[in-house]
Amino acid sequence: MSTDLVQLVTAIAQRARAASLVLATTPTARKDAALLKLAELIPASADALLAANARDLEAARANNLPSHQIDRLTLTPARLDQLAESVRQVAVLPDPVGTTLEEWTRPNGIHIRKRRVPIGVIGIIYEARPNVTIDCAILCLKSGNAAILRGGKEIFHTNTAFAALLTQALAETGLPADAVQLIPTTDRAALNTLLKLDTLIHCIIPRGGESLIRFVAENSTIPVIKHYTGVCFVYVDKDADLAMAESILINAKTQRPGVCNTAEQLLVHADVAETALPQLAAALTAKGVQLRADNDSASILARVGAAHTPATPADFTAEFLDLILAVRIVPDLETAIATINRDSSGHTEAIVTRDETAARRFQDAVDSAVVTWNASTRFNDGFEFGFGAEIGISTDRLHARGPMGLNELCTYKYVIDGTGQVRG
Amino acid sequence: MSTDLVQLVTAIAQRARAASLVLATTPTARKDAALLKLAELIPASADALLAANARDLEAARANNLPSHQIDRLTLTPARLDQLAESVRQVAVLPDPVGTTLEEWTRPNGIHIRKRRVPIGVIGIIYEARPNVTIDCAILCLKSGNAAILRGGKEIFHTNTAFAALLTQALAETGLPADAVQLIPTTDRAALNTLLKLDTLIHCIIPRGGESLIRFVAENSTIPVIKHYTGVCFVYVDKDADLAMAESILINAKTQRPGVCNTAEQLLVHADVAETALPQLAAALTAKGVQLRADNDSASILARVGAAHTPATPADFTAEFLDLILAVRIVPDLETAIATINRDSSGHTEAIVTRDETAARRFQDAVDSAVVTWNASTRFNDGFEFGFGAEIGISTDRLHARGPMGLNELCTYKYVIDGTGQVRG
Repeated sequence: MSTDLVQLVTAIAQRARAASLVLATTPTARKDAALLKLAELIPASADALLAANARDLEAARANNLPSHQIDRLTLTPARLDQLAESVRQVAVLPDPVGTTLEEWTRPNGIHIRKRRVPIGVIGIIYEARPNVTIDCAILCLKSGNAAILRGGKEIFHTNTAFAALLTQALAETGLPADAVQLIPTTDRAALNTLLKLDTLIHCIIPRGGESLIRFVAENSTIPVIKHYTGVCFVYVDKDADLAMAESILINAKTQRPGVCNTAEQLLVHADVAETALPQLAAALTAKGVQLRADNDSASILARVGAAHTPATPADFTAEFLDLILAVRIVPDLETAIATINRDSSGHTEAIVTRDETAARRFQDAVDSAVVTWNASTRFNDGFEFGFGAEIGISTDRLHARGPMGLNELCTYKYVIDGTGQVRG
Repeated sequence: MSTDLVQLVTAIAQRARAASLVLATTPTARKDAALLKLAELIPASADALLAANARDLEAARANNLPSHQIDRLTLTPARLDQLAESVRQVAVLPDPVGTTLEEWTRPNGIHIRKRRVPIGVIGIIYEARPNVTIDCAILCLKSGNAAILRGGKEIFHTNTAFAALLTQALAETGLPADAVQLIPTTDRAALNTLLKLDTLIHCIIPRGGESLIRFVAENSTIPVIKHYTGVCFVYVDKDADLAMAESILINAKTQRPGVCNTAEQLLVHADVAETALPQLAAALTAKGVQLRADNDSASILARVGAAHTPATPADFTAEFLDLILAVRIVPDLETAIATINRDSSGHTEAIVTRDETAARRFQDAVDSAVVTWNASTRFNDGFEFGFGAEIGISTDRLHARGPMGLNELCTYKYVIDGTGQVRG
């Protein structure tokens, strides 16, 4: 049985590698034709997709999954239409492949071109979100990569139905059907096999909770690009425009509290805390945000009768993903920077200030993927960056940091033209 | 004991992380001053360095190391002068940190700048080469990264002496002394601890033999950039200039047979094999190269009385690192491409041809880091590329592919300027 699984997964990876070599030189128009075919097939296959989804939902109810999880699993005709629309949007994005990134000629006359090319074979490991199957497949396809998808068991039948559509769209437009393959089992042993196939698979992107990502990072011999969630800070400087600080903080904390670029902690400069904190607290409380305050901020909040609870040490590095905000007062800019570099997750931080010198120092010294000045943390996002698509937000530093769009799904190669040069 | 080691290595990594935050915003002139101080200290400390090296050499002789290995371990006053000169050369290279890689303004007015910044803390794991300690330390320092060095036991005393100089150079020029640290033990357990410190160390670069690299890749939870050696191909097309093919092949195979960008295999187009192969074989044999021929090439070589031995299947994927060359005849360009994509290591391949269409197809379809047209494979090298320095040649696809210079020791961050924008 285990040998069978190893053979099954290895054969999938070998076929993906072969398909990737074809895809790497496939013209844009042919890739786009496959995407448009898929966009057509999704609504046309609504019955089959909804029937497969119903099987997953039945199992979810039988397993007493909480209702918000069941909602995330659920496909509807409207959601299918949205999905088809997102496929059409990727089809019209520019093809990242083939762009010359740099070129130069050496004194000996060789000409060197650094050209963007697909990574090769990308493994996507994800949990129970039906849209991920299509989202990841189309971004890999557009960027010329073969994809191996391994989704969660809660959504297995839905994924299988989507994978069949992908195969059909590829085959009907003359692209290798193996360019997108789903691992047809959710057995953990199959995943373990996959993560060791480092001669066939070039990159693993896990999408899901921290335990999934950690499992993948610890067990993979293939390079992994991690998408951890974030512990993001907003620092209100002594020269902040208070109305702006309030607006940015409310947006960063409450617009979508469950995502990685939401703010989890507020730092306020001591010089303005007496004024700023009560105003910010009132606005946050009005939006239903609970404050977890350090001693200094708690005494100010208590004095004005603002709701809060004392913070525990764990709150200062916590990712709440909820309407909860840790609050601290810092004596100066440098302490704000040091606090962030120690306690944030390096995802996204914001400074609110009128003082450009302070802003530049903050942006230089804060060691995070995205550092905003007078803008919400919520802008760390591929669509907000104008990438047109996003496979995730990398919390790694190598290869891709921050939003990952089509360009970030590519690597490069060097193409050298000579006239017979040899090395002296 | 094991707990002590864990604490020791963790403390080193914590200090490195703190130093990296200082280095990230250290001006170029101050980094260069530390490098120039080091260049001054190396010859001035020759006695201490040579004495430390003598202890390693004594142990090497007692352990009966082969003479070429002992030679690699050996420092001389002339080698120290070369090393000091290489430090001065890095000091005058442009600082990669701070460069704006891209910038744009979004319709909502936020301005996004993608700025090159240091990776952070880099762990270098290497074997018995004394120059690696200085080479890697200075490239990390110039690019604003803190370095943790873990060298082989054969060169431990020499490394310790170099590390002391590095500390002195940093301290005397006011940079954090923890910016470069040597793990003061070659205990494998210390390495295992190091490779798991993924919250403090951001990148591991192993430099050494395949077994070392594999060990690191399999045991690290920190992203690894691998520098495997290469199985590089030269393809002589039917439209090749034969004199050029000979010159490129001789250079690629014999200029330095023990390195990763040396050619290990020759493919010849069947249409020209009868003419080309005898001429190429004669030139190679004259340089002492042994040919391992497939059936088709063996029969041509036999007919003209050229020395060769029959190839085994293993020869067609072998990295000889010696004056040995596998030889095969291919019926056409596409077979050459498919053969290379199956059997090469994806490092560097060359086509020799007068036919630009064939050359472009080869450069597009061959999935290797560097693909040359009418130029030697030996050009896959940071100095030959004009990078001014090289920490190695990456055989990975993520982050860096091919020669890694100072730019490749950096990542980027996004700096966003707003005027109060929030996400709608």
